[in-house]
Amino acid sequence: MTSLSLSGVFAPVLTPMDKDLTIDLPLYIEFCHWLLDTGCHGLVLFGTNSEATSFSVAERMAAVDAVLEAGIPAEKLVVGNGTPAVSDGVELARHALAAGCHGVMTLPPFYYPKVSDEGLFRAFAYIIERVADPALKMYFYHIPQISGIGLSAELLDRLATAFPTAAVGVKDSSGDPENLRRFHQVAAAHPGFSVFCGTESLLLANMRGGGAGCISGMANVIPDQIRVLYDKYRDGDADVRQEQLNWMRNAALGTGFNAIAAAKALTAARTGASGWLRMRPPLVELTPAQQQVLHAAVAAAEPVLA
Amino acid sequence: MTSLSLSGVFAPVLTPMDKDLTIDLPLYIEFCHWLLDTGCHGLVLFGTNSEATSFSVAERMAAVDAVLEAGIPAEKLVVGNGTPAVSDGVELARHALAAGCHGVMTLPPFYYPKVSDEGLFRAFAYIIERVADPALKMYFYHIPQISGIGLSAELLDRLATAFPTAAVGVKDSSGDPENLRRFHQVAAAHPGFSVFCGTESLLLANMRGGGAGCISGMANVIPDQIRVLYDKYRDGDADVRQEQLNWMRNAALGTGFNAIAAAKALTAARTGASGWLRMRPPLVELTPAQQQVLHAAVAAAEPVLA
Repeated sequence: MTSLSLSGVFAPVLTPMDKDLTIDLPLYIEFCHWLLDTGCHGLVLFGTNSEATSFSVAERMAAVDAVLEAGIPAEKLVVGNGTPAVSDGVELARHALAAGCHGVMTLPPFYYPKVSDEGLFRAFAYIIERVADPALKMYFYHIPQISGIGLSAELLDRLATAFPTAAVGVKDSSGDPENLRRFHQVAAAHPGFSVFCGTESLLLANMRGGGAGCISGMANVIPDQIRVLYDKYRDGDADVRQEQLNWMRNAALGTGFNAIAAAKALTAARTGASGWLRMRPPLVELTPAQQQVLHAAVAAAEPVLA
Repeated sequence: MTSLSLSGVFAPVLTPMDKDLTIDLPLYIEFCHWLLDTGCHGLVLFGTNSEATSFSVAERMAAVDAVLEAGIPAEKLVVGNGTPAVSDGVELARHALAAGCHGVMTLPPFYYPKVSDEGLFRAFAYIIERVADPALKMYFYHIPQISGIGLSAELLDRLATAFPTAAVGVKDSSGDPENLRRFHQVAAAHPGFSVFCGTESLLLANMRGGGAGCISGMANVIPDQIRVLYDKYRDGDADVRQEQLNWMRNAALGTGFNAIAAAKALTAARTGASGWLRMRPPLVELTPAQQQVLHAAVAAAEPVLA
């Protein structure tokens, strides 16, 4: 069996803020330690749940530096370098690699909505070729319902063929099991190619299909519970565990509130730190009344786990 | 009659590139001069047609500097500062103001698709309040079919009320005459508020409704013809002139090719400079065969104008 480039449970780390909406670095670092201590194999700094695109390149690089200076192991970090400008994607990737991070997670350029696979191939190739470092590991980020730009299996296959050492995985946040199966076929054709699902509700399906794990917003909230399913996915009771695991997602997202705002409100409640409630515009934090609704929904749903 | 903050025919300047896909500054500067010499009242540097979001903040600021150093009058320039990160929007606006530019054109943050008017208000307010310069003039950029984020008339009204010196106009690139009328009502309630249409095909309707002019991709191609309609929109034959003016749009976009790629191909043909054919990924230049189709369509449609 060929080993995957990366595997496990990863949190796309939420970003706490000071009153001036700069990143609250002490709270951020404390949270990164907690995530690794509570079940995560590693962290994705600056994914969608991190409000990545709401921060400048300089702000993102400074936060990565701060986390590393605080003693978080670089090899446990994947840095989101998704930006509309491929030149920014190069800068963020170079910075992550120079710091020793495992790799980068890369959105397609996401301003123009109607782009061809050829244009997307050129965009990713631009970054890979200009970074020009054999250590580069790039995980492509498929989240069409947010970015507006989907990545086809054919495109991933072309990238993995053209750049076998750099194009090593994908995160599928579509939530579509059928799409996940198409990505499993890409992985089957390219040994070592890691398929992550973007929701822990597909973790079992992903592992059974040869996937590598999950990078889920809910891993900011219940990393320990997700980790248990990952560790025991071959057990006879895995289907029951998967169903149980979905309780938090169903409760939190069942409110209809923004998923990132909800995850931050739950983290604020757990830690008592108000920095978790703040969001950069255009996102808006939950109101006190909305927080009450959320906490009541979660309290009512919480199962007694085996 | 209250004077508008800005009015006239503006080109969202196309961006030529060297082989390495950096901006070809000599060609860019030459083109800016040509546009101003050929009918444009002013220029928007880094709009959608400029592939603005495909360039980093540093690349965009360097290009603005180069244009100013080449003697283009700063007061004729509006700088696009649309970015997904409001902190980048602040940096670009400060740079434009420090250089003496007339103002900025601002996209809503465009990664997260489902955002509230409250979130958008906060995003624009973030930029205005942190720039903190009474000279700031901001033109909001409504292009929902590209950015995925529309600006409601209610939001514009709230912004113009809260920030009367900064929130001074809008560019409506929706192409929807009904939406343009809603924006005219905002302008009627806020003297000086300038409504630009994003297509020269609505120039007459916009001027008759109290609008300020147009900022149209086609102003990169036929600035002289658009200028004539702007100057003569009160004449008895204005409706005929408007219909005649649409020939280029109908011919070029009738091909179904990407509008920016088409405008660049037409500019390459006019100037003979291959730097006009290049595009940053994810956009892709027209193939030689597509260029032939385009040029044939334009040649067949060209009218003998009065």
